[in-house]
Amino acid sequence: MSTSRRFCESIRSLFDPESVAVVGATENPEKPGYLLLRNLIDLGYRGKIYPVNRGRETVLGLKCYPRVNEIPGEVETAVIIVPAKEVPKIMEDCGDKKVRSVIICSSGFGEAGGDGAKLEKMILEIASRHGIRIVGPNTTGILNTYNGFTSSFVKLSKPVRGPVSIIAQTGMFASAMLEHILTTQPYGLSKVAGLGNKVDVEDSDILEYLEGDPDTRVVAIYAEGIRDGRRFIEVSRRVSPKKPIIILKSARTRSGGRAAETHTGSLMVRDEIFDAACRAAGIIRAGDIEELLDYTKAFAMSPPPRGDRVGVIAYTGAGCVMSADAIEDYGLRLAELSEETMETLRTYTPPFGVLSNPLDAELIRMKVGNAEESMKLSLEAFMRDPNVNMVSLVMVGLRRGSKIWEVDFRRVFSKIGMDHPEKPLVATIMASREVTEEFNEEMARLGVPTYPSLHRNIRALSALARYHLKYGTSNNLQT
Amino acid sequence: MSTSRRFCESIRSLFDPESVAVVGATENPEKPGYLLLRNLIDLGYRGKIYPVNRGRETVLGLKCYPRVNEIPGEVETAVIIVPAKEVPKIMEDCGDKKVRSVIICSSGFGEAGGDGAKLEKMILEIASRHGIRIVGPNTTGILNTYNGFTSSFVKLSKPVRGPVSIIAQTGMFASAMLEHILTTQPYGLSKVAGLGNKVDVEDSDILEYLEGDPDTRVVAIYAEGIRDGRRFIEVSRRVSPKKPIIILKSARTRSGGRAAETHTGSLMVRDEIFDAACRAAGIIRAGDIEELLDYTKAFAMSPPPRGDRVGVIAYTGAGCVMSADAIEDYGLRLAELSEETMETLRTYTPPFGVLSNPLDAELIRMKVGNAEESMKLSLEAFMRDPNVNMVSLVMVGLRRGSKIWEVDFRRVFSKIGMDHPEKPLVATIMASREVTEEFNEEMARLGVPTYPSLHRNIRALSALARYHLKYGTSNNLQT
Repeated sequence: MSTSRRFCESIRSLFDPESVAVVGATENPEKPGYLLLRNLIDLGYRGKIYPVNRGRETVLGLKCYPRVNEIPGEVETAVIIVPAKEVPKIMEDCGDKKVRSVIICSSGFGEAGGDGAKLEKMILEIASRHGIRIVGPNTTGILNTYNGFTSSFVKLSKPVRGPVSIIAQTGMFASAMLEHILTTQPYGLSKVAGLGNKVDVEDSDILEYLEGDPDTRVVAIYAEGIRDGRRFIEVSRRVSPKKPIIILKSARTRSGGRAAETHTGSLMVRDEIFDAACRAAGIIRAGDIEELLDYTKAFAMSPPPRGDRVGVIAYTGAGCVMSADAIEDYGLRLAELSEETMETLRTYTPPFGVLSNPLDAELIRMKVGNAEESMKLSLEAFMRDPNVNMVSLVMVGLRRGSKIWEVDFRRVFSKIGMDHPEKPLVATIMASREVTEEFNEEMARLGVPTYPSLHRNIRALSALARYHLKYGTSNNLQT
Repeated sequence: MSTSRRFCESIRSLFDPESVAVVGATENPEKPGYLLLRNLIDLGYRGKIYPVNRGRETVLGLKCYPRVNEIPGEVETAVIIVPAKEVPKIMEDCGDKKVRSVIICSSGFGEAGGDGAKLEKMILEIASRHGIRIVGPNTTGILNTYNGFTSSFVKLSKPVRGPVSIIAQTGMFASAMLEHILTTQPYGLSKVAGLGNKVDVEDSDILEYLEGDPDTRVVAIYAEGIRDGRRFIEVSRRVSPKKPIIILKSARTRSGGRAAETHTGSLMVRDEIFDAACRAAGIIRAGDIEELLDYTKAFAMSPPPRGDRVGVIAYTGAGCVMSADAIEDYGLRLAELSEETMETLRTYTPPFGVLSNPLDAELIRMKVGNAEESMKLSLEAFMRDPNVNMVSLVMVGLRRGSKIWEVDFRRVFSKIGMDHPEKPLVATIMASREVTEEFNEEMARLGVPTYPSLHRNIRALSALARYHLKYGTSNNLQT
C-alpha cells in the first residue's frame, strides 16, 4: 500500500472502522469504559466490537479479550480508555495486531507535564514505529452519525444527521457543544472529531478526510493550537472553496496562551499571523462560541447569496434603524429596491408612509389590514427583487389580542409559493420566551435560520456575503 | 406653584396620576382604545379612570364622557389614542380642564412628514400655551408596575416588580422588549417609558424622575435621537453615580440616521461626539440589544465589585482558555490567587494537575471524587479570596449517567453558607437546551445572573468593573 493510500485508510479507519477494540471496557456504570461501549451499542454501530479487559470473559454480552493482539479477527482501530501509564504497552499490542489507528481518551500526557510528557513521547515513538495514527490523548474522540461509530464516553443524545462536521480540540467541550447543538440548533451533524492533545492527528488530517466526505458541507472548528500551521492553511485553502470552514481559535492572548499550555499543551501562535493566514485561506473566523454557531447555522441552512445587498423587513421602526446601523457596521450594503418592488409596495402603503429599505412592515399592515398579508406582500417583493441579495426579517411578537396581528409563516411561504427561501433569509423576533420559541421552531421547519437579535442576523449574512465574494456562487453550499 | 415644582408634578403625573382620561376608549376588541382600558383595569390601577368617547354612555362598565372638559372631577393626565388630526382639539379640551400631562399614542405626526409635521407643531403650541407636558406622539407610553398605571395598548403579561426602569424611544419596541424581559430575564421592572417622537418629554425628564424614584436602581435606555443632548449628558452625569445608566443608541451610522428620520423624526448626532459625552457622563454604552440586556442584568443582580480582577472556575479546559482570552480582550485582569487559596486547593488537586486561575474544576473533581464537592471547594475558595474581585463560573452539562457529575448549586451555596454571592458572580453553561434552562433557573433563584456564553460572562463583568472604577463601591447598586 502506498504511503498516501495508507494515510487515507488510517484516517478513514477513525470514522468508519469495520472493527474496533475497546481497551478498558467494563460493566461498572460509573466508568467511562462502560459509557463508551454503551454508546457504540446504543448508536447502532454495525462493525465488530471487541472489548478488551484482562479481568473479564464478557462485557455487556460481548466476548472480551485480555489483550488487543489476542483478538482473532482484524482490528482496524482501537479506543483506549485506561490510565495513562498503561497506554504504551497497549500501543505495542496494537502495533503487533497491525491496528491502523488508535483513539486515546485517557488524560495525563503532555497536558500534565513531567511524566505525562515522557509518556506522550513514548506513545509517539511506538506509533511511528508501527505506522499507527493517534487521535488524542485526552479527548472523547470521534462521532460519526452516519454509521453510529463513536469513541465518546459521554452519554449522547440520539444525534440528528446533517451537513455539519465539527473538529474540536478538547473532548469535554466537544461533547458539551454537541449536546448543545443537538438540542438547540436546527441542523444535523455528520462527523465530530475531538482531537485533545493532537500529538498526531491534527485538524488538517480531519479536514482532508471531510473534503471527500459527501455527507459534510460545512466544517466548524474549535482549536487552541495547531501544530503544523502551514499545512493547515494549505489544506484549508484547498477545502474552503468547496466547503466553508469556520474556526474559533482560542489562546489568542498571552493569558489564553498560558491557559492552553496546561490544558492541551498547545503553544501559542501570534494571533495577527494566524488571522492573516486565515483570511488568505478563506477560513471564516469566529470570536466566540455564539459566533461560531451563528455562522455554522447560516452556512448549513442558506443558499449562496449573489451579492452583499441586504433587504430588511422589520415589524417595528426600531428594527429598521438598528438594522441599517448593523448593515453599515458589518460592511454590507442596504439594497436599493427595484422600481418594480417600489411600485408593488406603494399600492399597499398609506399616503403618509415613507417607503424604503429597511421596510417598516407595520406601514403595509396599516393599509392592508393584517400582519400576515403585509408579511406576504413584503417578503414576496423582497425575495423577487434582483437588487436584494439577502433578506433579514425582524419581527416583534406582541399580544394584541387580535387575529389582525397573527402571522402564520407556513401559510405566508405557501402563498408565496416557496418551500424554502431561494436566497439567504434570516429571521429574528423580539417577543416573550414562548412566542420566540414557537417562531424559531416554525422558521426552522421552513428552513430559515433564526438568531436572538437583529444584529446577529446581519452578522450571519455578512459571513455568507464575504464567503460568496471570495468564491462566487459555484460552491455546493446548498445541495 | 413654582415652575420647577410644576415641572416635577407634571412628570410625576405621567407615572402616578390620581386620575386619567382615556380619549378613544372603546369596546371594540380590535381597537387600541379597548386594549388600553383593559390593561388599566387588569393591572389593577387604583386611580380614577374616565373613558372619553362621543358615541358612548359607558365603556367596560365605566361612565364615559363626550369630551375631556366635560369630566366632573380633576383629571391629572390624559391618554390620547384617536386619529392624529383630532388630537389638537382634544389638547385644547385638556388645557381647558387643566390636565398636567398627556400621553399621545396616535401616530401620523412628525414621523409622517407633511401634514403630520404641521399637526406636531400645533399640539406643541397648544401644550406650551396651557403648560401641558406631552409624551409621544407615536408610542405606547408609560407603565408603572408599582401602581398598575399604563398607557400601553399592547396586551401585557403581568409584570414582575423589580429594580430596573426602561426608557425606550418607539413604543412597539418598548412593548416587545418588555414582553421579552418579563419572560426571559430574572429581574423585575419598575417604570417603563416609551417616548415615541419625543416632541416634548425626553429621556432627561424621565431620568430626573427616576433619580428620585426609590423603586429604580438601574436605568436601561434605547434611544434613536436625543433632542437636547447637552441636558441629557448633564442629568446623566448627576444620576450615573447613584444609578447606572445603560444606553443602546441607534442611528449611529448614515444609513441608521436616515432610517431614524422616517421612524421617529430623530436627527442624527455624530457618534464619536455622543460616545465621548457618554464616557464623560459615566453612561454605559451597549452596541446591541443583547449587550443592553446583559449589562442591565449584571447591574440589577450584582453587588459592586472591589476591583477588576477576575477568578474563573471552568468545568472544561476550553472554558479556561477562552475565559483567559476574554478577560484580556475586555481589559480586565486575571486574579492572582492568594497563598491561602492555593494552599487550600492544592490539597484537593491531583499531583499532575496544574493549579492556576482560570481553575479547571475537573482537576479538583478527579481528586475529591464528585463534581458538587469540587464546585463547593473552588467557589468557596474564590469567594473568600480577597485577590478575586469577581467570579465567572463556566459549567458544561454532560449526561454521564452518574451522580458523580451532578451539581445541585442550591446545596453548594448552602454548604458555603451564602444566600446570594457577596461579590459579583456570573455563570454560564454549555449543555443541552433542557439542562441549560434548569441551570439558568436555579441560578436565578440563587441571585446569580447567567449568560449564554463565557464571553458574555466576562463582558458583563467588564461593565461592572468599569462602572466601579469610575464611581467606587459607595453607590446603591445593591439594596
